[in-house]
Amino acid sequence: MTVTERVELAQNAAGRMVPAMVNGKPQIPYLGVGKYQARGRKAAPPVRSSKDYPENGDKRVPDLETALRKCGLRDGMVISNHHHLRDGDRVALMALQAAAKLGVKDLTWFPSASFPSQKAAIELMQSGVIHRIEGSMNGPLGDYCTQGKMRGMGVLRSHGGRWQAIQDGEVHVDVAVIAAPTADFFGNADGSHGKSACGSLGFALADSIYADNVIVVTDNLVTFPCIPWQIQGNNVDYVVEVDSIGDPAKIVSGTTQITRSPDRLRIAELVARFLRDAGIMRNGFSFQAGAGGIALAFVDFLRRMMKEDGVKARFVRGGSTRYLVDMLQEGLTDYILDGQTFDLEAVKSIASDPRHVPTSPFTSYNYHGKGNFASMVDAVVLGATEVDVNFNGNVVTHSDGRLLHGIGGWQNCLAAGCTILAVPSFRDRIPVIVDEVTTLTGPGELIDVVVTERGIAINPARQDLLDAVKGSRLPIRPIQDIKAEVERICGGNPARPQRGDRPVAIVKWVDGTVLDTVWQVG
Amino acid sequence: MTVTERVELAQNAAGRMVPAMVNGKPQIPYLGVGKYQARGRKAAPPVRSSKDYPENGDKRVPDLETALRKCGLRDGMVISNHHHLRDGDRVALMALQAAAKLGVKDLTWFPSASFPSQKAAIELMQSGVIHRIEGSMNGPLGDYCTQGKMRGMGVLRSHGGRWQAIQDGEVHVDVAVIAAPTADFFGNADGSHGKSACGSLGFALADSIYADNVIVVTDNLVTFPCIPWQIQGNNVDYVVEVDSIGDPAKIVSGTTQITRSPDRLRIAELVARFLRDAGIMRNGFSFQAGAGGIALAFVDFLRRMMKEDGVKARFVRGGSTRYLVDMLQEGLTDYILDGQTFDLEAVKSIASDPRHVPTSPFTSYNYHGKGNFASMVDAVVLGATEVDVNFNGNVVTHSDGRLLHGIGGWQNCLAAGCTILAVPSFRDRIPVIVDEVTTLTGPGELIDVVVTERGIAINPARQDLLDAVKGSRLPIRPIQDIKAEVERICGGNPARPQRGDRPVAIVKWVDGTVLDTVWQVG
Repeated sequence: MTVTERVELAQNAAGRMVPAMVNGKPQIPYLGVGKYQARGRKAAPPVRSSKDYPENGDKRVPDLETALRKCGLRDGMVISNHHHLRDGDRVALMALQAAAKLGVKDLTWFPSASFPSQKAAIELMQSGVIHRIEGSMNGPLGDYCTQGKMRGMGVLRSHGGRWQAIQDGEVHVDVAVIAAPTADFFGNADGSHGKSACGSLGFALADSIYADNVIVVTDNLVTFPCIPWQIQGNNVDYVVEVDSIGDPAKIVSGTTQITRSPDRLRIAELVARFLRDAGIMRNGFSFQAGAGGIALAFVDFLRRMMKEDGVKARFVRGGSTRYLVDMLQEGLTDYILDGQTFDLEAVKSIASDPRHVPTSPFTSYNYHGKGNFASMVDAVVLGATEVDVNFNGNVVTHSDGRLLHGIGGWQNCLAAGCTILAVPSFRDRIPVIVDEVTTLTGPGELIDVVVTERGIAINPARQDLLDAVKGSRLPIRPIQDIKAEVERICGGNPARPQRGDRPVAIVKWVDGTVLDTVWQVG
Repeated sequence: MTVTERVELAQNAAGRMVPAMVNGKPQIPYLGVGKYQARGRKAAPPVRSSKDYPENGDKRVPDLETALRKCGLRDGMVISNHHHLRDGDRVALMALQAAAKLGVKDLTWFPSASFPSQKAAIELMQSGVIHRIEGSMNGPLGDYCTQGKMRGMGVLRSHGGRWQAIQDGEVHVDVAVIAAPTADFFGNADGSHGKSACGSLGFALADSIYADNVIVVTDNLVTFPCIPWQIQGNNVDYVVEVDSIGDPAKIVSGTTQITRSPDRLRIAELVARFLRDAGIMRNGFSFQAGAGGIALAFVDFLRRMMKEDGVKARFVRGGSTRYLVDMLQEGLTDYILDGQTFDLEAVKSIASDPRHVPTSPFTSYNYHGKGNFASMVDAVVLGATEVDVNFNGNVVTHSDGRLLHGIGGWQNCLAAGCTILAVPSFRDRIPVIVDEVTTLTGPGELIDVVVTERGIAINPARQDLLDAVKGSRLPIRPIQDIKAEVERICGGNPARPQRGDRPVAIVKWVDGTVLDTVWQVG
């Protein structure tokens, strides 16, 4: 099918219109938080036999084309990649271009995220090699999708949602191609060593377990055994050696940088003060923050407050940076539980410190497991492109409707004890607090606090938090007040996007139901 | 069914008569090494949802009875345990007795191995709580089985075969009860710390992944997160705290002991010399040996030879003991890849040294994976109760037909580059080298060398090994010669067992086919 066909829409529990069928598969509209009852059994990969693999363990083949051919890659299959190498990755395009050379068409590309440096995938969509991307689309690929040029519909999932989709059999991966900063010839792979080291390889774990065929691509082959084995060779079919899996400078930053903007520093400080004054910052607590400028500044403020008050965390969740590593080394936390590793200091730490523990979307985020870590985190600090007066959040589109960002772990993190959006009140004179988010990515009932440079808004549903900070010197204000002030500055509401009536992508909720639709723009 | 019913037998590729149906399930007779083609898809556990588990991660329930009731334990189900606590385990009986209290009948008990201290399971078989044991039966339970008193048929599997059976869906585990020397309330569990520390927990891994319901039982609850998590809480339903999961003195030895018998020391030395003189002991090589007296002495001899010759191993495989730990610390090997941890020094090492790596039957032994470690090991030194002139081996029964031992990793290890049986030529005046093994546990084509105190027999199929030691001072002899000499000493062949015609247990091959039958005795 192509998206020019007529698509039936249904209204979901959030009041959003969502397609009933996506890429030929029937969908369940979002039913509300915790309302969908999972059923059935997990996806079951084929039983293999050691008799069909080399006794000496050597699974190397000369190149990716050979590996893909041996995997039986053919038209219409699903090929997956992970994004731990971020904008520095070379392996995904290498694999897709090798598929193109084999003459294969209509692939579903299923990366855990795609990046601007992979925009050559657009040519592969134009030439028919790729039918669609299911996965986060950052920048030009997302833009291409919102322009309605992708033949299939985009499917956006959180990190946990991606695990859930693979595990539940919603997405059957035919061939997983895993970039490995270090690997042995058996396929054991590790992300924390080698010239292209990226730290954790957790995003590739589901692919390695559930895909029918698994190829490991490395530029640092070591003698068996590769220790640690974040990816197990027992799940791997072929190993390919290449000169370079990516550009180290774009895989990890040399240094992650705290924001210098006074407004953003103020936001960061307010978040830290909120955690302290609300009593969340206490011995044995836990938190998660990302690697953006505000988040890093927040960690720095919090760390100082923890020292002042003699408070120690039990664990902090990465995305890890040198700021978290410092906390670990200073004894301010017992553990870093790390999903992705953002800078060189963090890579060094995860490679050598047993208290810096790699995690996967299975442990951290999979909603269709027997619980996960996300709901055990006391506080999480997140960003957003928009938040509305009902505390609903958007992280995937801008107010002009263009799809420019992935969900990452954002949806999964909303399960934390206290979810804080730390956002500037406006960007480029466009207010961030709106009447209704352009694309619903997270339900307001899970978003507890919005911190801007103009004050802190607490979700009225969280009376406990309102009570906790009563009497503090924090600038607590109704979200409507902040919104009104910002609109006076920016000259009114942002213009609503010129929304077409053609869906180009959907946003999945953590349970696999459809939370919202991204519409063609322009 | 009970074994008193008429059982149809078929002759397998090894010439052994095996039942076509076992415990109501049709069986495939052994077809030869590497001949059975696995098909189908892996077992698929139910999809769960985080909404049905506590948000704060606390899965504790007051006791095992409550946990089993919540798991929905009922008549005829399969309940599993691991045996890392060996003869010191208290949890398996605790679980079975709790099941008895709930009034449940006809359970299949599916331990990775059972031990003499668990002989109270006999009462539970007599009272109808347990229908049969599928798993290694060491000592009294095996004896009970060979007496024909168990209602169902015993099924003996190797460690790898157990993984294969669970993974392939041959055995569906309803409730796994996992003894954990350390755990958190979410169910993350670790074997290497705590008063009942046992090292690796690899034997429980398949159960934790594939069972419908998983209970972790611990006597050392730590604050989340329990690091490392050898068992992942995301697979666990309930956590039960108890005073003691086992008797530390019987879980690990304070010290493992090298044999003092001059004959056995000679065997050990001959094995080491064989590896050296055949050129297998060379830089970057690998080996595996167990924790028995001969194996330990062998490691000690080999270590001295490695030092003399300046040879370093890339990895050694545990069963780990202080002798392997010494090698690691002396730089004689880069890694210990450890399946089970036998003494205190080894537990200390696996808890603290990142080069001492826990493995599981999945990585090491599962024949229905994409290869496994066993075939990548250069040499393995094993024991046997009997070996015959065609190099077939027996490890489960004695020459009187009584089932007294489990298979362990023995069958899986036969995949090594050079498989050596290190055995005394007779025990209690009963020859170990026989015309035909009582119970076929390993096909002779995979057994390369038999080392006794009276000389070394090399399998004629291994001309390469015969060539390699040509001209050495090793006492290489035809196996028939050694056998004849021993019979002169012992006064003839061992008496053949009074074999009944009633099968009481089967021996599975690593691919799930039936290799041989254990018959009722007396």
